[in-house]
Amino acid sequence: MTLDKNPSATLAAFAAGLSFDTIPAPVLRRTEDLFLDWYASALAGKGARPVEAIEAYACAMGPASGRAEVLISRRTTSPHFAAMVNAAASHFAEQDDVHNGSVFHPGAVVFPAALAMAQDIGASGREFLAAVVAGYEVGIRVGEFLGRSHYRVFHTTATAGTLAAAAAAGRLLKLDAPTMLHAFGSAGTQAAGLWEFLRDAADSKQLHTAHAASSGLASAYLAREGLTGARQILEGPQGLAAGMSSDADPARLTDRLGQRWATAETSFKYHASCRHTHPSADALLALMQTHRLVADDLVQVTTHVHQGAIDVLGRVTVPSTVHQAKFSMGTVLALVAEYGYAGLDEFEQHYLAPRVAALRDRVTMQLDEEVDGAYPQRWIGKVTASTRDGKTFSARVDEPKGDPGNSLTRAELEDKARRLAAYGRGATPAEMADLMARIWSVAEALRVERWLAA
Amino acid sequence: MTLDKNPSATLAAFAAGLSFDTIPAPVLRRTEDLFLDWYASALAGKGARPVEAIEAYACAMGPASGRAEVLISRRTTSPHFAAMVNAAASHFAEQDDVHNGSVFHPGAVVFPAALAMAQDIGASGREFLAAVVAGYEVGIRVGEFLGRSHYRVFHTTATAGTLAAAAAAGRLLKLDAPTMLHAFGSAGTQAAGLWEFLRDAADSKQLHTAHAASSGLASAYLAREGLTGARQILEGPQGLAAGMSSDADPARLTDRLGQRWATAETSFKYHASCRHTHPSADALLALMQTHRLVADDLVQVTTHVHQGAIDVLGRVTVPSTVHQAKFSMGTVLALVAEYGYAGLDEFEQHYLAPRVAALRDRVTMQLDEEVDGAYPQRWIGKVTASTRDGKTFSARVDEPKGDPGNSLTRAELEDKARRLAAYGRGATPAEMADLMARIWSVAEALRVERWLAA
Repeated sequence: MTLDKNPSATLAAFAAGLSFDTIPAPVLRRTEDLFLDWYASALAGKGARPVEAIEAYACAMGPASGRAEVLISRRTTSPHFAAMVNAAASHFAEQDDVHNGSVFHPGAVVFPAALAMAQDIGASGREFLAAVVAGYEVGIRVGEFLGRSHYRVFHTTATAGTLAAAAAAGRLLKLDAPTMLHAFGSAGTQAAGLWEFLRDAADSKQLHTAHAASSGLASAYLAREGLTGARQILEGPQGLAAGMSSDADPARLTDRLGQRWATAETSFKYHASCRHTHPSADALLALMQTHRLVADDLVQVTTHVHQGAIDVLGRVTVPSTVHQAKFSMGTVLALVAEYGYAGLDEFEQHYLAPRVAALRDRVTMQLDEEVDGAYPQRWIGKVTASTRDGKTFSARVDEPKGDPGNSLTRAELEDKARRLAAYGRGATPAEMADLMARIWSVAEALRVERWLAA
Repeated sequence: MTLDKNPSATLAAFAAGLSFDTIPAPVLRRTEDLFLDWYASALAGKGARPVEAIEAYACAMGPASGRAEVLISRRTTSPHFAAMVNAAASHFAEQDDVHNGSVFHPGAVVFPAALAMAQDIGASGREFLAAVVAGYEVGIRVGEFLGRSHYRVFHTTATAGTLAAAAAAGRLLKLDAPTMLHAFGSAGTQAAGLWEFLRDAADSKQLHTAHAASSGLASAYLAREGLTGARQILEGPQGLAAGMSSDADPARLTDRLGQRWATAETSFKYHASCRHTHPSADALLALMQTHRLVADDLVQVTTHVHQGAIDVLGRVTVPSTVHQAKFSMGTVLALVAEYGYAGLDEFEQHYLAPRVAALRDRVTMQLDEEVDGAYPQRWIGKVTASTRDGKTFSARVDEPKGDPGNSLTRAELEDKARRLAAYGRGATPAEMADLMARIWSVAEALRVERWLAA
């Protein structure tokens, strides 16, 4: 194996050269799945305070019409502001996709840039899908490259996100390899996003995706206009990793380009709760289905978990807010037992309901050696439940629902999408039916037109 | 001395509460000087490739009219894009101001945000000047706080610049202290800018100021719209310093607020050359004036310099580009001897002229113990020259022209401004005369109106 002296250039050339025809069909189908999931997440952000603040900024600073669409308001404007607002909206409900290995949410930064640019230039559905895959492949690899030391202080979705957005927008603009590398240079030197906001539960999460999507799109556009950027923005001695990582691995940037499709490794979030609850929730669902149990049958539930789950979830006993409820293992399992699903509506409407609270208090967590040893490579779910008729059952899942090996069916994705749209009142059921049909056939679309805006 | 547990909040409260009446008159007059110097620097950016690329982006993505003015094109648009383009333009000719201690160029990020916001809301000249001072005081202290370790990888003007721009725009929007702190949170989490571009002589320098000014302005506006940010974005455990500095000193953030006026410590660049040539150039000018010499009298010139000057300037003997000529001690001194000034036009037109080249080859640098020992706190200039009539003269300056203790007069600033405007063909001499009169009386203006746009 020879050392790549300029992996940024190799990655840029891959993104610039990626064509629809070379992407395997299952990857393309998964990209359509991700598109619907992202679209519905954006609709779920409608009405949220941070999202509406960013939309107010876009209204004040951007043009009052254009070819790109703001999904939550159904108005049109320039691609810069459409990307900005759609990115903010799609990262609000925390139901958007995630790539485990890079701890990166690709959808919330790639789709806003790709959709806005595709609408602006009238790209075909195939060009749009290829650009999205370019964005995912680049962003995931940049996230992996930046590593765990980066994630301790920086929100990888915000930082790697600028490069992902630049790759997607640059692919639509048909940048050649050297120009794409200039776009990477401009994107990397604008990469930003700190975790400090978490301490105050401040609104920066949506600002981060808005910034990444819009500045990434700007970087691609500026490169086409002749603005040059650093050739080694990622790996150089004064580049992104030099400034913001202590364990960066340049080999990750070019890992099996064109052979490994990182896009298809992306997970869908099924339940609306903390990810640490998902394996147990799925195991309990499996247990109840196998033994045909209903919530009332359950006397006691024990979840066998990794230490990280106890660290993160152990603090919440009786949740006092919806947000806290999403970090309460008992509440999540009780909702799943009652409703078969712990979604946004289930949390909002039932997290303190008497039946839910009663079962919640009968759920305990126990450290499990096998589960703990497998984490974080594998997220195993194991539960034991005792029932009113004196029996005890156990169940396990080896990959939580939504992960690549246990992905959602299109029916499940449609169901989730309808719920997200209803949650934010972003689209009617009839509109969603139409949208979904168009998304499943986007590869045949001659032009990516508007979806909801007049 | 008690430890300030939240210096970000103290600094934000200072910026929010700063009023025109509490700023000493000499600081206000210096701010007007800085305004002219910045304005002319922006005009000098007209026609430059990176600047015009950013203007093309602003034309494509922003509204086609508005209340804020793009100086190079004389069109109007929204404050976001006016700030973006004016910031890019004013950091192109490398003649904009610099604060030595923070290695920060405040003008290029503060004035674009302040002018655009002031024009948008119709602020008075007093409100505008107070906002500019708020931006300078904040940005310089953030730069000092981030320290030398930060500057090794990050372009401080880009990073600290987002906070400086947010402070200026936020002051104009009359944000109260808690809201200003939210603006700081949003600005700090968007702070970005890497030195990697220098390796390829890429265009990121102008992108950095464009990004800082526009995202800082956005942060202030978004805070007014209710978007919250981290309370400890600068000093917190996952804040700016945690991610991007290893020698940050939080005490610098609140250093003598309201007593020490960092704004007035800002230096003007007089010659258009590398800063390391300035002390010697000024010493030679002093020598020639004292002894009434002309260029033809000089046989041999020796400059007595610090090691850093030899390191940076020693590589260039015969310059092959204008840019290289600015790093040639011989060329700079020859231009100064011939024309009394080494400005943009002198370099462009004469850097290879036979008389200039002849004198250039008779200039040598010599390491001087006193000069080297005083650096970088003091930039002493010392030269010795032998003349045709067999005499030898020496001269020294203890502070290069443009530094706070040896600042430019208004006549010198006007002369520099006229040259900058002519260089970029940004304004006619008559327009400059009008502009300068308006700038010297800006404190009396009831509203900061447009300056050049129709």
